[in-house]
Amino acid sequence: MGNTSWIEERLDSDGCSIGYRVHQKLHEEQSDFQLIEIWESTDFGLLMALDGCWMVTGRENFIYHEMLAQPAINSVQTPGQVAIVGGGDCGTLREVLKYPQVKQAVQIEIDERVTRVSEQFFPELCAANDDPRAKLLFEDGLAWMGSCEAESQDLILIDSTDPVGMAAGLVSADFFKACHQALSQGGVLGMQSESPLLHQDLLSDLRERLTAVGFSQVRHFLFPQPCYPTGWWCVTLAGKGATFSDVPLHLGSVEIDNRYYNAGIHAASQQLPEFMRQRIRTP
Amino acid sequence: MGNTSWIEERLDSDGCSIGYRVHQKLHEEQSDFQLIEIWESTDFGLLMALDGCWMVTGRENFIYHEMLAQPAINSVQTPGQVAIVGGGDCGTLREVLKYPQVKQAVQIEIDERVTRVSEQFFPELCAANDDPRAKLLFEDGLAWMGSCEAESQDLILIDSTDPVGMAAGLVSADFFKACHQALSQGGVLGMQSESPLLHQDLLSDLRERLTAVGFSQVRHFLFPQPCYPTGWWCVTLAGKGATFSDVPLHLGSVEIDNRYYNAGIHAASQQLPEFMRQRIRTP
Repeated sequence: MGNTSWIEERLDSDGCSIGYRVHQKLHEEQSDFQLIEIWESTDFGLLMALDGCWMVTGRENFIYHEMLAQPAINSVQTPGQVAIVGGGDCGTLREVLKYPQVKQAVQIEIDERVTRVSEQFFPELCAANDDPRAKLLFEDGLAWMGSCEAESQDLILIDSTDPVGMAAGLVSADFFKACHQALSQGGVLGMQSESPLLHQDLLSDLRERLTAVGFSQVRHFLFPQPCYPTGWWCVTLAGKGATFSDVPLHLGSVEIDNRYYNAGIHAASQQLPEFMRQRIRTP
Repeated sequence: MGNTSWIEERLDSDGCSIGYRVHQKLHEEQSDFQLIEIWESTDFGLLMALDGCWMVTGRENFIYHEMLAQPAINSVQTPGQVAIVGGGDCGTLREVLKYPQVKQAVQIEIDERVTRVSEQFFPELCAANDDPRAKLLFEDGLAWMGSCEAESQDLILIDSTDPVGMAAGLVSADFFKACHQALSQGGVLGMQSESPLLHQDLLSDLRERLTAVGFSQVRHFLFPQPCYPTGWWCVTLAGKGATFSDVPLHLGSVEIDNRYYNAGIHAASQQLPEFMRQRIRTP
Protein backbone atom coordinates (compact mmCIF):
# COMPACT_ATOMS: atom_id res chain seq x y z
CA MET A 1 0.00 0.00 0.00
CA GLY A 2 3.08 2.26 0.08
CA ASN A 3 3.10 5.21 2.46
CA THR A 4 -0.34 5.63 3.96
CA SER A 5 -1.73 7.14 7.13
CA TRP A 6 -5.14 7.46 8.78
CA ILE A 7 -6.93 10.80 9.14
CA GLU A 8 -9.81 10.89 11.58
CA GLU A 9 -12.48 13.52 12.10
CA ARG A 10 -13.32 13.38 15.81
CA LEU A 11 -16.62 15.08 16.57
CA ASP A 12 -16.44 16.59 20.03
CA SER A 13 -20.15 17.32 20.09
CA ASP A 14 -21.15 13.75 19.19
CA GLY A 15 -18.38 11.62 20.72
CA CYS A 16 -17.75 9.62 17.56
CA SER A 17 -15.22 9.74 14.76
CA ILE A 18 -14.96 8.81 11.10
CA GLY A 19 -11.69 8.36 9.30
CA TYR A 20 -10.09 7.28 6.08
CA ARG A 21 -6.77 5.80 5.06
CA VAL A 22 -4.99 8.27 2.81
CA HIS A 23 -2.00 8.34 0.51
CA GLN A 24 -1.41 12.08 0.72
CA LYS A 25 -2.82 15.56 1.11
CA LEU A 26 -3.23 17.09 -2.33
CA HIS A 27 -4.27 20.60 -1.34
CA GLU A 28 -4.62 22.83 1.70
CA GLU A 29 -5.62 26.46 1.97
CA GLN A 30 -7.13 28.81 4.49
CA SER A 31 -9.83 30.73 2.67
CA ASP A 32 -11.50 33.84 4.11
CA PHE A 33 -14.01 31.48 5.74
CA GLN A 34 -12.49 28.08 6.48
CA LEU A 35 -9.67 25.62 6.09
CA ILE A 36 -10.09 23.65 2.86
CA GLU A 37 -8.25 20.34 2.52
CA ILE A 38 -8.20 17.73 -0.22
CA TRP A 39 -6.89 14.22 0.48
CA GLU A 40 -6.26 11.27 -1.77
CA SER A 41 -7.69 8.24 0.00
CA THR A 42 -6.92 4.58 -0.65
CA ASP A 43 -10.57 3.42 -0.96
CA PHE A 44 -12.97 6.38 -1.07
CA GLY A 45 -11.55 8.47 -3.89
CA LEU A 46 -10.69 12.09 -3.18
CA LEU A 47 -11.88 13.61 0.09
CA MET A 48 -12.76 17.22 0.88
CA ALA A 49 -12.67 18.48 4.46
CA LEU A 50 -13.77 21.94 5.64
CA ASP A 51 -12.33 22.99 9.00
CA GLY A 52 -11.44 19.35 9.60
CA CYS A 53 -14.94 17.99 8.89
CA TRP A 54 -15.43 15.54 6.03
CA MET A 55 -17.72 17.08 3.44
CA VAL A 56 -17.39 14.93 0.35
CA THR A 57 -15.86 11.61 -0.62
CA GLY A 58 -15.56 10.70 -4.26
CA ARG A 59 -17.02 7.27 -3.60
CA GLU A 60 -20.38 8.05 -2.05
CA ASN A 61 -21.30 11.74 -2.40
CA PHE A 62 -23.84 10.73 -5.05
CA ILE A 63 -26.18 9.58 -2.29
CA TYR A 64 -26.18 12.94 -0.48
CA HIS A 65 -26.43 15.07 -3.59
CA GLU A 66 -29.21 13.03 -5.20
CA MET A 67 -31.17 12.97 -1.93
CA LEU A 68 -30.83 16.67 -1.21
CA ALA A 69 -31.92 17.69 -4.71
CA GLN A 70 -34.26 15.12 -6.17
CA PRO A 71 -36.97 14.34 -3.58
CA ALA A 72 -37.42 18.13 -3.36
CA ILE A 73 -37.61 18.68 -7.12
CA ASN A 74 -40.05 15.80 -7.37
CA SER A 75 -42.31 17.48 -4.79
CA VAL A 76 -42.79 20.74 -6.76
CA GLN A 77 -45.25 20.83 -9.67
CA THR A 78 -43.26 23.39 -11.69
CA PRO A 79 -39.69 23.68 -10.36
CA GLY A 80 -38.67 26.34 -12.88
CA GLN A 81 -36.65 28.58 -10.59
CA VAL A 82 -34.30 27.00 -8.04
CA ALA A 83 -32.03 28.64 -5.46
CA ILE A 84 -29.24 26.71 -3.70
CA VAL A 85 -27.79 28.31 -0.57
CA GLY A 86 -24.31 26.97 0.07
CA GLY A 87 -23.57 23.92 -2.05
CA GLY A 88 -20.15 25.18 -3.04
CA ASP A 89 -18.99 21.79 -4.31
CA CYS A 90 -21.68 22.16 -7.02
CA GLY A 91 -22.95 18.58 -6.67
CA THR A 92 -26.45 19.72 -5.73
CA LEU A 93 -26.50 22.12 -8.66
CA ARG A 94 -25.63 19.25 -10.99
CA GLU A 95 -28.48 17.14 -9.62
CA VAL A 96 -30.98 19.99 -9.95
CA LEU A 97 -30.00 20.60 -13.56
CA LYS A 98 -30.66 16.97 -14.48
CA TYR A 99 -34.29 18.06 -14.75
CA PRO A 100 -35.34 19.93 -17.90
CA GLN A 101 -38.21 21.41 -15.87
CA VAL A 102 -35.63 23.67 -14.19
CA LYS A 103 -35.27 26.94 -16.12
CA GLN A 104 -32.69 28.55 -13.85
CA ALA A 105 -30.69 27.43 -10.81
CA VAL A 106 -28.86 30.07 -8.76
CA GLN A 107 -26.19 28.87 -6.34
CA ILE A 108 -25.36 31.34 -3.57
CA GLU A 109 -22.14 30.15 -1.92
CA ILE A 110 -20.32 32.42 0.49
CA ASP A 111 -16.88 30.86 -0.13
CA GLU A 112 -15.81 31.01 -3.76
CA ARG A 113 -12.70 29.01 -2.93
CA VAL A 114 -14.77 25.91 -2.17
CA THR A 115 -16.15 26.03 -5.69
CA ARG A 116 -12.78 26.71 -7.31
CA VAL A 117 -11.15 23.86 -5.40
CA SER A 118 -14.06 21.57 -6.35
CA GLU A 119 -13.67 22.50 -10.01
CA GLN A 120 -10.07 21.36 -9.75
CA PHE A 121 -10.47 18.16 -7.72
CA PHE A 122 -14.11 17.12 -8.24
CA PRO A 123 -14.77 18.10 -11.87
CA GLU A 124 -17.56 15.50 -12.02
CA LEU A 125 -19.51 17.49 -9.39
CA CYS A 126 -19.03 20.68 -11.40
CA ALA A 127 -20.13 19.12 -14.71
CA ALA A 128 -23.20 21.40 -14.90
CA ASN A 129 -21.47 24.66 -13.94
CA ASP A 130 -21.36 25.73 -17.58
CA ASP A 131 -25.01 24.89 -18.18
CA PRO A 132 -26.66 28.11 -19.42
CA ARG A 133 -29.32 27.62 -16.74
CA ALA A 134 -26.71 27.74 -13.94
CA LYS A 135 -25.86 30.98 -12.17
CA LEU A 136 -23.06 30.95 -9.58
CA LEU A 137 -23.00 33.76 -7.04
CA PHE A 138 -20.40 34.10 -4.31
CA GLU A 139 -22.07 36.04 -1.56
CA ASP A 140 -23.88 35.66 1.75
CA GLY A 141 -26.94 33.43 1.31
CA LEU A 142 -28.77 34.98 4.26
CA ALA A 143 -28.49 38.47 2.81
CA TRP A 144 -29.40 37.23 -0.66
CA MET A 145 -32.53 35.54 0.63
CA GLY A 146 -33.48 38.63 2.64
CA SER A 147 -33.57 40.75 -0.49
CA CYS A 148 -35.03 38.09 -2.77
CA GLU A 149 -38.18 39.07 -4.66
CA ALA A 150 -41.37 37.63 -3.13
CA GLU A 151 -42.70 34.43 -4.70
CA SER A 152 -39.79 34.36 -7.17
CA GLN A 153 -38.41 30.87 -6.29
CA ASP A 154 -40.07 27.49 -6.76
CA LEU A 155 -37.50 25.52 -4.81
CA ILE A 156 -34.90 26.61 -2.24
CA LEU A 157 -32.25 24.12 -1.14
CA ILE A 158 -30.01 24.72 1.87
CA ASP A 159 -26.81 22.76 1.30
CA SER A 160 -24.79 24.06 4.21
CA THR A 161 -22.26 22.88 6.74
CA ASP A 162 -23.66 21.99 10.17
CA PRO A 163 -25.87 24.67 11.74
CA VAL A 164 -23.19 26.00 14.05
CA GLY A 165 -20.81 28.91 13.54
CA MET A 166 -21.31 30.70 10.26
CA ALA A 167 -24.14 28.36 9.17
CA ALA A 168 -26.19 28.86 12.37
CA GLY A 169 -28.25 31.61 10.73
CA LEU A 170 -29.51 29.12 8.16
CA VAL A 171 -31.81 27.45 10.70
CA SER A 172 -33.13 30.68 12.25
CA ALA A 173 -36.79 31.67 12.16
CA ASP A 174 -35.86 34.91 10.34
CA PHE A 175 -34.15 33.00 7.55
CA PHE A 176 -37.03 30.53 7.23
CA LYS A 177 -39.43 33.49 7.04
CA ALA A 178 -37.37 35.01 4.23
CA CYS A 179 -37.40 31.65 2.41
CA HIS A 180 -41.17 31.36 2.84
CA GLN A 181 -41.65 34.82 1.35
CA ALA A 182 -39.31 34.09 -1.54
CA LEU A 183 -41.14 30.89 -2.46
CA SER A 184 -43.99 30.73 -4.94
CA GLN A 185 -47.24 29.04 -3.97
CA GLY A 186 -46.66 25.29 -4.12
CA GLY A 187 -42.95 25.87 -3.60
CA VAL A 188 -40.67 23.82 -1.36
CA LEU A 189 -37.79 24.57 1.00
CA GLY A 190 -35.32 21.68 1.46
CA MET A 191 -32.34 21.43 3.77
CA GLN A 192 -29.84 18.91 5.02
CA SER A 193 -30.88 18.31 8.60
CA GLU A 194 -28.37 16.11 10.40
CA SER A 195 -28.49 12.61 11.88
CA PRO A 196 -31.82 11.01 12.81
CA LEU A 197 -30.03 9.13 15.59
CA LEU A 198 -28.19 12.08 17.15
CA HIS A 199 -30.24 15.16 16.41
CA GLN A 200 -33.90 14.53 17.22
CA ASP A 201 -34.09 17.75 19.24
CA LEU A 202 -32.85 19.75 16.28
CA LEU A 203 -35.43 18.06 14.06
CA SER A 204 -38.23 18.87 16.50
CA ASP A 205 -37.09 22.49 16.60
CA LEU A 206 -36.95 22.58 12.81
CA ARG A 207 -40.51 21.29 12.44
CA GLU A 208 -41.77 23.84 14.96
CA ARG A 209 -39.95 26.77 13.38
CA LEU A 210 -40.95 25.87 9.84
CA THR A 211 -44.60 25.51 10.82
CA ALA A 212 -44.47 28.75 12.81
CA VAL A 213 -43.38 30.81 9.79
CA GLY A 214 -46.21 29.41 7.68
CA PHE A 215 -45.05 26.25 5.95
CA SER A 216 -48.05 23.97 5.55
CA GLN A 217 -46.34 20.58 5.63
CA VAL A 218 -42.95 19.24 6.75
CA ARG A 219 -41.42 15.90 5.74
CA HIS A 220 -38.16 14.14 6.51
CA PHE A 221 -36.34 11.98 3.94
CA LEU A 222 -33.75 9.60 5.43
CA PHE A 223 -30.73 8.12 3.69
CA PRO A 224 -27.21 6.71 4.27
CA GLN A 225 -24.44 9.29 4.51
CA PRO A 226 -21.24 7.34 5.21
CA CYS A 227 -18.88 10.30 5.80
CA TYR A 228 -21.09 12.08 8.34
CA PRO A 229 -21.46 11.00 12.00
CA THR A 230 -23.49 7.77 12.41
CA GLY A 231 -23.59 7.34 8.61
CA TRP A 232 -27.29 8.19 8.66
CA TRP A 233 -28.68 11.52 7.62
CA CYS A 234 -31.84 13.31 6.62
CA VAL A 235 -33.18 16.06 4.45
CA THR A 236 -36.17 18.05 5.65
CA LEU A 237 -38.63 19.46 3.13
CA ALA A 238 -41.18 22.14 3.97
CA GLY A 239 -43.99 23.01 1.58
CA LYS A 240 -45.64 26.39 0.98
CA GLY A 241 -49.01 24.90 0.13
CA ALA A 242 -47.22 21.95 -1.48
CA THR A 243 -48.46 18.48 -0.59
CA PHE A 244 -45.86 15.74 -0.35
CA SER A 245 -46.52 12.41 -1.94
CA ASP A 246 -45.05 8.93 -2.13
CA VAL A 247 -44.98 9.33 -5.91
CA PRO A 248 -42.25 11.53 -7.44
CA LEU A 249 -43.82 14.16 -9.71
CA HIS A 250 -41.28 14.25 -12.54
CA LEU A 251 -39.25 11.03 -12.38
CA GLY A 252 -40.43 8.76 -15.16
CA SER A 253 -41.41 11.67 -17.42
CA VAL A 254 -37.72 12.30 -18.05
CA GLU A 255 -34.61 10.15 -18.36
CA ILE A 256 -32.55 10.71 -15.20
CA ASP A 257 -29.19 8.98 -14.77
CA ASN A 258 -29.04 8.20 -11.04
CA ARG A 259 -27.10 5.87 -8.78
CA TYR A 260 -29.15 6.10 -5.56
CA TYR A 261 -32.51 7.86 -5.96
CA ASN A 262 -35.42 6.24 -7.78
CA ALA A 263 -39.20 6.07 -7.39
CA GLY A 264 -38.98 3.32 -4.77
CA ILE A 265 -36.47 5.31 -2.74
CA HIS A 266 -38.66 8.44 -2.97
CA ALA A 267 -41.39 6.63 -1.04
CA ALA A 268 -39.13 4.50 1.16
CA SER A 269 -36.97 7.35 2.44
CA GLN A 270 -40.07 9.00 3.92
CA GLN A 271 -40.85 5.98 6.11
CA LEU A 272 -39.69 6.92 9.58
CA PRO A 273 -38.23 4.58 12.19
CA GLU A 274 -40.54 3.90 15.11
CA PHE A 275 -38.71 6.21 17.52
CA MET A 276 -39.19 9.19 15.17
CA ARG A 277 -42.77 8.28 14.30
CA GLN A 278 -43.72 8.18 17.98
CA ARG A 279 -42.03 11.49 18.67
CA ILE A 280 -43.70 13.25 15.76
CA ARG A 281 -47.15 11.86 16.62
CA THR A 282 -46.90 12.92 20.25
CA PRO A 283 -44.74 16.05 20.31
CA MET B 1 -15.28 15.66 30.32
CA GLY B 2 -12.58 14.36 32.68
CA ASN B 3 -10.09 11.84 31.34
CA THR B 4 -11.22 10.65 27.94
CA SER B 5 -9.53 9.20 24.90
CA TRP B 6 -10.53 8.13 21.40
CA ILE B 7 -10.55 4.50 20.28
CA GLU B 8 -10.71 3.89 16.57
CA GLU B 9 -11.40 0.68 14.65
CA ARG B 10 -9.41 1.02 11.43
CA LEU B 11 -10.60 -1.42 8.78
CA ASP B 12 -7.67 -2.41 6.63
CA SER B 13 -9.88 -4.12 4.06
CA ASP B 14 -12.17 -1.10 3.62
CA GLY B 15 -9.85 1.88 4.20
CA CYS B 16 -12.19 3.59 6.65
CA SER B 17 -12.41 3.86 10.41
CA ILE B 18 -15.06 4.40 13.07
CA GLY B 19 -14.26 5.52 16.58
CA TYR B 20 -15.74 6.62 19.85
CA ARG B 21 -14.66 8.83 22.70
CA VAL B 22 -14.37 6.73 25.82
CA HIS B 23 -13.97 7.20 29.54
CA GLN B 24 -12.39 3.83 30.24
CA LYS B 25 -12.08 0.17 29.39
CA LEU B 26 -14.32 -1.81 31.71
CA HIS B 27 -13.34 -5.31 30.69
CA GLU B 28 -10.85 -7.19 28.56
CA GLU B 29 -10.33 -10.90 28.10
CA GLN B 30 -8.91 -13.27 25.55
CA SER B 31 -11.45 -16.07 25.16
CA ASP B 32 -10.70 -19.31 23.35
CA PHE B 33 -11.87 -17.59 20.18
CA GLN B 34 -11.30 -13.85 20.31
CA LEU B 35 -10.37 -10.74 22.26
CA ILE B 36 -13.44 -9.36 24.04
CA GLU B 37 -13.36 -5.73 25.17
CA ILE B 38 -15.97 -3.54 26.84
CA TRP B 39 -15.59 0.23 26.84
CA GLU B 40 -17.56 2.97 28.54
CA SER B 41 -18.12 5.68 25.94
CA THR B 42 -19.08 9.30 26.50
CA ASP B 43 -22.03 9.36 24.07
CA PHE B 44 -22.87 5.86 22.81
CA GLY B 45 -23.31 3.94 26.04
CA LEU B 46 -21.24 0.80 26.55
CA LEU B 47 -19.34 -0.60 23.58
CA MET B 48 -18.37 -4.20 22.84
CA ALA B 49 -15.48 -4.97 20.49
CA LEU B 50 -14.42 -8.43 19.30
CA ASP B 51 -10.85 -8.64 18.04
CA GLY B 52 -10.85 -4.85 17.81
CA CYS B 53 -14.04 -4.62 15.72
CA TRP B 54 -17.03 -2.74 17.12
CA MET B 55 -19.91 -5.14 17.55
CA VAL B 56 -22.45 -3.35 19.73
CA THR B 57 -23.02 0.13 21.09
CA GLY B 58 -25.62 0.66 23.78
CA ARG B 59 -27.08 3.61 21.89
CA GLU B 60 -28.01 2.11 18.56
CA ASN B 61 -27.84 -1.70 18.58
CA PHE B 62 -31.66 -1.75 18.58
CA ILE B 63 -31.59 -1.00 14.85
CA TYR B 64 -29.41 -3.98 13.96
CA HIS B 65 -31.14 -6.45 16.24
CA GLU B 66 -34.67 -5.46 15.21
CA MET B 67 -33.71 -5.57 11.53
CA LEU B 68 -31.96 -8.92 11.69
CA ALA B 69 -34.84 -10.59 13.52
CA GLN B 70 -38.12 -8.96 12.63
CA PRO B 71 -38.33 -8.66 8.82
CA ALA B 72 -37.44 -12.37 8.79
CA ILE B 73 -40.02 -13.39 11.40
CA ASN B 74 -42.60 -11.36 9.53
CA SER B 75 -41.84 -13.27 6.33
CA VAL B 76 -42.63 -16.75 7.77
CA GLN B 77 -46.26 -17.84 8.13
CA THR B 78 -45.64 -19.96 11.24
CA PRO B 79 -42.26 -19.11 12.82
CA GLY B 80 -42.61 -21.65 15.61
CA GLN B 81 -39.06 -22.97 15.65
CA VAL B 82 -36.16 -20.52 15.31
CA ALA B 83 -32.40 -21.14 15.26
CA ILE B 84 -29.87 -18.34 15.72
CA VAL B 85 -26.29 -19.11 14.69
CA GLY B 86 -23.90 -16.77 16.49
CA GLY B 87 -25.73 -13.90 18.16
CA GLY B 88 -23.80 -14.28 21.40
CA ASP B 89 -24.85 -10.86 22.73
CA CYS B 90 -28.40 -12.29 22.79
CA GLY B 91 -30.00 -9.17 21.26
CA THR B 92 -31.35 -11.12 18.29
CA LEU B 93 -32.77 -13.77 20.61
CA ARG B 94 -34.60 -11.06 22.54
CA GLU B 95 -36.12 -9.67 19.32
CA VAL B 96 -37.22 -13.13 18.15
CA LEU B 97 -38.92 -13.85 21.46
CA LYS B 98 -40.99 -10.67 21.25
CA TYR B 99 -43.28 -12.75 19.03
CA PRO B 100 -45.66 -15.18 20.74
CA GLN B 101 -45.75 -17.16 17.47
CA VAL B 102 -42.24 -18.41 18.34
CA LYS B 103 -42.44 -21.66 20.35
CA GLN B 104 -38.71 -22.22 20.73
CA ALA B 105 -35.57 -20.24 19.84
CA VAL B 106 -32.20 -22.02 19.96
CA GLN B 107 -29.08 -19.86 19.95
CA ILE B 108 -25.92 -21.66 18.85
CA GLU B 109 -22.97 -19.44 19.79
CA ILE B 110 -19.46 -20.82 19.62
CA ASP B 111 -18.03 -18.47 22.26
CA GLU B 112 -19.80 -18.75 25.60
CA ARG B 113 -17.72 -15.87 26.97
CA VAL B 114 -19.41 -13.38 24.61
CA THR B 115 -22.75 -14.29 26.16
CA ARG B 116 -21.45 -14.19 29.73
CA VAL B 117 -19.84 -10.80 29.18
CA SER B 118 -23.06 -9.54 27.56
CA GLU B 119 -25.09 -10.74 30.53
CA GLN B 120 -22.84 -8.63 32.72
CA PHE B 121 -22.57 -5.45 30.63
CA PHE B 122 -25.63 -5.53 28.35
CA PRO B 123 -28.32 -7.06 30.57
CA GLU B 124 -31.01 -5.37 28.43
CA LEU B 125 -29.92 -7.51 25.46
CA CYS B 126 -30.12 -10.65 27.58
CA ALA B 127 -33.57 -9.85 28.97
CA ALA B 128 -35.11 -12.88 27.25
CA ASN B 129 -32.40 -15.41 28.14
CA ASP B 130 -34.58 -16.81 30.94
CA ASP B 131 -37.64 -17.08 28.71
CA PRO B 132 -38.70 -20.76 28.82
CA ARG B 133 -38.74 -20.73 25.00
CA ALA B 134 -35.02 -19.80 24.87
CA LYS B 135 -32.33 -22.45 24.58
CA LEU B 136 -28.68 -21.35 24.69
CA LEU B 137 -26.10 -23.72 23.25
CA PHE B 138 -22.40 -23.01 23.16
CA GLU B 139 -21.04 -24.99 20.27
CA ASP B 140 -20.05 -24.75 16.62
CA GLY B 141 -23.01 -23.53 14.54
CA LEU B 142 -21.73 -25.18 11.35
CA ALA B 143 -21.58 -28.60 12.98
CA TRP B 144 -24.95 -28.07 14.68
CA MET B 145 -26.59 -27.19 11.39
CA GLY B 146 -24.97 -30.14 9.66
CA SER B 147 -26.62 -32.56 12.06
CA CYS B 148 -29.91 -30.70 12.35
CA GLU B 149 -33.06 -32.72 11.62
CA ALA B 150 -34.49 -32.04 8.13
CA GLU B 151 -37.35 -29.53 7.97
CA SER B 152 -37.16 -28.94 11.73
CA GLN B 153 -36.60 -25.15 11.67
CA ASP B 154 -38.96 -22.43 10.45
CA LEU B 155 -36.44 -19.63 10.63
CA ILE B 156 -32.62 -19.66 10.73
CA LEU B 157 -30.80 -16.42 11.50
CA ILE B 158 -27.05 -16.01 11.00
CA ASP B 159 -25.87 -13.32 13.41
CA SER B 160 -22.15 -13.65 12.89
CA THR B 161 -19.04 -11.54 12.71
CA ASP B 162 -17.83 -10.66 9.21
CA PRO B 163 -17.47 -13.64 6.86
CA VAL B 164 -13.72 -13.91 7.25
CA GLY B 165 -11.69 -16.08 9.59
CA MET B 166 -13.81 -18.33 11.75
CA ALA B 167 -17.09 -17.00 10.30
CA ALA B 168 -16.09 -17.67 6.66
CA GLY B 169 -17.81 -21.06 6.72
CA LEU B 170 -21.13 -19.34 7.39
CA VAL B 171 -21.38 -18.08 3.80
CA SER B 172 -20.27 -21.34 2.16
CA ALA B 173 -22.47 -23.31 -0.20
CA ASP B 174 -22.22 -26.34 2.11
CA PHE B 175 -23.55 -24.38 5.05
CA PHE B 176 -26.38 -22.87 2.99
CA LYS B 177 -27.27 -26.37 1.80
CA ALA B 178 -27.45 -27.59 5.40
CA CYS B 179 -29.66 -24.60 6.28
CA HIS B 180 -31.94 -25.32 3.33
CA GLN B 181 -32.34 -28.93 4.44
CA ALA B 182 -33.00 -27.93 8.05
CA LEU B 183 -35.74 -25.48 7.04
CA SER B 184 -39.41 -26.40 6.80
CA GLN B 185 -41.38 -25.57 3.65
CA GLY B 186 -42.10 -21.84 3.74
CA GLY B 187 -39.13 -21.32 6.01
CA VAL B 188 -36.61 -18.48 5.78
CA LEU B 189 -32.86 -18.12 6.19
CA GLY B 190 -31.70 -14.65 7.23
CA MET B 191 -28.20 -13.29 7.66
CA GLN B 192 -26.35 -10.06 8.23
CA SER B 193 -24.72 -9.37 4.88
CA GLU B 194 -22.40 -6.37 5.08
CA SER B 195 -22.43 -2.89 3.56
CA PRO B 196 -24.43 -2.18 0.39
CA LEU B 197 -21.84 0.43 -0.54
CA LEU B 198 -18.72 -1.68 -0.03
CA HIS B 199 -19.74 -5.27 -0.59
CA GLN B 200 -21.78 -5.59 -3.79
CA ASP B 201 -19.61 -8.47 -4.98
CA LEU B 202 -20.29 -10.39 -1.78
CA LEU B 203 -24.02 -9.75 -2.19
CA SER B 204 -23.95 -11.01 -5.78
CA ASP B 205 -22.12 -14.14 -4.64
CA LEU B 206 -24.64 -14.63 -1.85
CA ARG B 207 -27.61 -14.41 -4.19
CA GLU B 208 -26.01 -16.90 -6.55
CA ARG B 209 -25.07 -19.38 -3.84
CA LEU B 210 -28.45 -19.21 -2.13
CA THR B 211 -30.29 -19.75 -5.40
CA ALA B 212 -27.91 -22.58 -6.35
CA VAL B 213 -28.73 -24.60 -3.21
CA GLY B 214 -32.46 -24.28 -3.86
CA PHE B 215 -33.78 -21.15 -2.18
CA SER B 216 -36.68 -19.85 -4.24
CA GLN B 217 -36.42 -16.14 -3.50
CA VAL B 218 -33.77 -13.79 -2.10
CA ARG B 219 -34.36 -10.31 -0.71
CA HIS B 220 -32.15 -7.63 0.82
CA PHE B 221 -33.33 -5.37 3.65
CA LEU B 222 -31.24 -2.21 4.11
CA PHE B 223 -30.85 -0.17 7.28
CA PRO B 224 -28.51 2.20 9.15
CA GLN B 225 -25.78 0.55 11.21
CA PRO B 226 -23.71 3.37 12.72
CA CYS B 227 -20.92 1.28 14.29
CA TYR B 228 -20.13 -0.76 11.14
CA PRO B 229 -18.12 0.61 8.18
CA THR B 230 -20.08 3.17 6.11
CA GLY B 231 -22.91 3.12 8.68
CA TRP B 232 -25.09 1.29 6.17
CA TRP B 233 -25.82 -2.40 6.33
CA CYS B 234 -28.12 -5.09 5.04
CA VAL B 235 -29.76 -8.33 5.97
CA THR B 236 -30.35 -10.93 3.28
CA LEU B 237 -33.35 -13.25 3.50
CA ALA B 238 -33.73 -16.40 1.44
CA GLY B 239 -37.00 -18.28 1.28
CA LYS B 240 -37.59 -22.02 0.96
CA GLY B 241 -40.82 -21.63 -0.95
CA ALA B 242 -41.56 -18.50 1.10
CA THR B 243 -42.74 -15.44 -0.80
CA PHE B 244 -41.59 -12.08 0.51
CA SER B 245 -44.07 -9.28 0.78
CA ASP B 246 -44.19 -5.58 1.55
CA VAL B 247 -46.65 -6.37 4.33
CA PRO B 248 -45.30 -7.89 7.56
CA LEU B 249 -47.19 -11.10 8.39
CA HIS B 250 -47.46 -10.80 12.17
CA LEU B 251 -46.89 -7.15 13.09
CA GLY B 252 -50.23 -5.63 13.97
CA SER B 253 -51.64 -8.93 15.22
CA VAL B 254 -49.47 -8.59 18.33
CA GLU B 255 -48.21 -5.71 20.47
CA ILE B 256 -44.48 -5.31 19.73
CA ASP B 257 -42.44 -2.68 21.54
CA ASN B 258 -39.96 -1.46 18.92
CA ARG B 259 -37.74 1.54 18.39
CA TYR B 260 -36.80 1.13 14.71
CA TYR B 261 -38.82 -1.52 12.86
CA ASN B 262 -42.47 -0.99 11.95
CA ALA B 263 -44.74 -1.84 9.03
CA GLY B 264 -43.55 1.15 7.00
CA ILE B 265 -39.90 0.18 7.53
CA HIS B 266 -40.65 -3.44 6.53
CA ALA B 267 -41.63 -2.24 3.06
CA ALA B 268 -39.19 0.68 2.83
CA SER B 269 -36.08 -1.30 3.75
CA GLN B 270 -36.65 -3.57 0.72
CA GLN B 271 -36.48 -0.64 -1.72
CA LEU B 272 -33.03 -0.82 -3.27
CA PRO B 273 -30.89 2.12 -4.37
CA GLU B 274 -30.59 2.46 -8.11
CA PHE B 275 -27.05 1.04 -8.30
CA MET B 276 -28.20 -2.19 -6.62
CA ARG B 277 -31.43 -2.41 -8.59
CA GLN B 278 -29.52 -2.16 -11.87
CA ARG B 279 -26.99 -4.76 -10.80
CA ILE B 280 -29.64 -7.26 -9.71
CA ARG B 281 -31.69 -6.78 -12.88
CA THR B 282 -28.70 -7.32 -15.15
CA PRO B 283 -26.41 -9.74 -13.31
